[in-house]
Amino acid sequence: MEELYRLDTGEKRAAGAEESGGARVPCVVDFSPTATDMSRFPFSVWRKINKNVLSQGGGSLFAQGDAQGEYSLRETIGRYLHSSRGVNCTPQQIIVGAGNDYLLLLLEKILGRHVRIAMENPTYKRAYQIFGSFAYEITTVDMDESGMTVSGLRQSDVTAAYVMPSHQYPTGVLMPIGRRLELLKWANEAPGRYLIEDDYDSEFRYKGKPIPSLQASDTQGRVIYIGTFSKSIAPAIRVSYMVLPQELLERYRQQCYFYSATVSRIDQKVLEEFIREGYFERYLNKMRKHYKEKHDLLLEELADFEADFRVMGENAGLHLLLTGRRGQTEKELIATAQAQGVRVYGLSDSLVGKAKEQPGRTVLLGYGGLGFEDIKKGLALLRQAWL
Amino acid sequence: MEELYRLDTGEKRAAGAEESGGARVPCVVDFSPTATDMSRFPFSVWRKINKNVLSQGGGSLFAQGDAQGEYSLRETIGRYLHSSRGVNCTPQQIIVGAGNDYLLLLLEKILGRHVRIAMENPTYKRAYQIFGSFAYEITTVDMDESGMTVSGLRQSDVTAAYVMPSHQYPTGVLMPIGRRLELLKWANEAPGRYLIEDDYDSEFRYKGKPIPSLQASDTQGRVIYIGTFSKSIAPAIRVSYMVLPQELLERYRQQCYFYSATVSRIDQKVLEEFIREGYFERYLNKMRKHYKEKHDLLLEELADFEADFRVMGENAGLHLLLTGRRGQTEKELIATAQAQGVRVYGLSDSLVGKAKEQPGRTVLLGYGGLGFEDIKKGLALLRQAWL
Repeated sequence: MEELYRLDTGEKRAAGAEESGGARVPCVVDFSPTATDMSRFPFSVWRKINKNVLSQGGGSLFAQGDAQGEYSLRETIGRYLHSSRGVNCTPQQIIVGAGNDYLLLLLEKILGRHVRIAMENPTYKRAYQIFGSFAYEITTVDMDESGMTVSGLRQSDVTAAYVMPSHQYPTGVLMPIGRRLELLKWANEAPGRYLIEDDYDSEFRYKGKPIPSLQASDTQGRVIYIGTFSKSIAPAIRVSYMVLPQELLERYRQQCYFYSATVSRIDQKVLEEFIREGYFERYLNKMRKHYKEKHDLLLEELADFEADFRVMGENAGLHLLLTGRRGQTEKELIATAQAQGVRVYGLSDSLVGKAKEQPGRTVLLGYGGLGFEDIKKGLALLRQAWL
Repeated sequence: MEELYRLDTGEKRAAGAEESGGARVPCVVDFSPTATDMSRFPFSVWRKINKNVLSQGGGSLFAQGDAQGEYSLRETIGRYLHSSRGVNCTPQQIIVGAGNDYLLLLLEKILGRHVRIAMENPTYKRAYQIFGSFAYEITTVDMDESGMTVSGLRQSDVTAAYVMPSHQYPTGVLMPIGRRLELLKWANEAPGRYLIEDDYDSEFRYKGKPIPSLQASDTQGRVIYIGTFSKSIAPAIRVSYMVLPQELLERYRQQCYFYSATVSRIDQKVLEEFIREGYFERYLNKMRKHYKEKHDLLLEELADFEADFRVMGENAGLHLLLTGRRGQTEKELIATAQAQGVRVYGLSDSLVGKAKEQPGRTVLLGYGGLGFEDIKKGLALLRQAWL
């Protein structure tokens, strides 16, 4: 796995890149790693719940709600997180907010202005940009096949680490329990150390046993757990949640009690009903199955790429990673694909700092937003481009 | 008007306060200055639009939207702000966000970390708390009957000032055009100076001509205009908007483009239809009339208080201010009211810094959330308490 992060210093292979010098080819298939599939969403159920909530709720629904989010929604989220992700918390520890970005803005006010934070490299770029817009000092820490290395973390003199243990974005690394315990040990060794767990797409896992969250293994209140419905329900549903350990909950109550709720009470109620009535779980099961079919099709179609490419990240998520065995740069891969009307994405989009300056060798193929025919068509074109 | 801010240094009159020493009297009438009346809200229209949007919109509504807010909603807000508040802006300058608090968090990232900001005293406490949670250096500046004094502003060595020119909270002061021009002159005198205009309840004005916003008089791009639908539509509707001057818009685009939208696309569409179809204006007209009736009733009922109390703030908003002519402290007024089962609010709730330590003499009577009978009953009880 560490090959992923070794930077290409070898000779340039420009053969492919030259092909893209011509006229711009329109995009036929877009392997976007962030796209999701809404075609199976139970719109009629959502509409029905919406209608019921609006007709039953009356005026009180339009009144100012609890700053942390409606208590009953927090109870529902707490139960869901416990059963699906092993998260241990009370509804009091949950803060509902309009998206992860808002919750990170709030977290800044809780953790304080000057935090030295460790991130993996590559990492989730948006979180990096957001921390960068704070007064945070960001240190990138090496990864190996188990995720963030604790030796790297120890060298970095940070007080917090941002990790995605269930499915690192973009590498797809699943952090094994041993590494998790090492991270928790690091966090427990000095007061004020925290692990920020972004569990962004833990719902989509295809192989092996379900993996609980890092928070589930945390006995000392060191993990800040963040998750979202934007991925699992719909991007336009701006509802995320943050589970604060007791110590930070106290600080939130003292320092941030005046920040009002960011999600409308109506939307919260609709979401609550959607989960409580079992629609959410049913939808997740359906999508897990559906995404697995796409994922399996993509893997199958990639079989004849294996001589020339290493395929990675097949345990979870909505994308796979390909690294050329002939040392092609990602720029070349992107350009030759582009010449065939196929859009693939460079891993280096997720690299930060100096690592970004070196030519990468790995591309991401997202399949979440594509139909089966698109996947086949895209792969046929990539075959022409790359094999 | 400056009497409002003169601090009570005279003798204590504890006569009233003693009465509240006994058993706790349940609250019969609550003159909350922040409560609004939702009883006339066209719930059925809102439901209908919601249903239409959900049934017509299909899957695209559930996709990720524009980070600044849907363009068509921003057009609609821009038109509304121009016609009702004289605001001059393009839709590009508008940022839609989940409440004022979120927009202020975003503004922090645009204006920068270390801003020296002037606020009036008393002021809107939540904004004060939010700026206080930033690394902002807050200076309170004296007010007179025209609002923030420019001499005070000049002494304060700040780079930004937070004002509510249409209806200062909680004093109700309307800033005349002369003072507005002086403020703008101050802002124009040095680069990087800004006025943050919180136009929070400009919709409810009962006397005289409609007063345009401060932004309307700004020719040099010095005003950041903030408004909300939480007051004019419903507290649970978490939609606010911020109009950025060109210079800050550039900074937003460079420094904050990665912060995603905080309001769901569906909610934005419903709101847009509600405004575009004329329901918003009709509702505002109805509420203006309705609140005016409550306001007039309260003023009428207060006629026999005038010998003992100065009544202020009668031009706008959803509350009035009373100052005892016999030098009663607000603590005494609150306690004697409380003994009769009436809740009134101290102006000092909105005081910040050292001013807060001195005993205030003014109370707020909010009527937005009360029915006509409640107002009469409340005043009858206050007559027993205070006259």
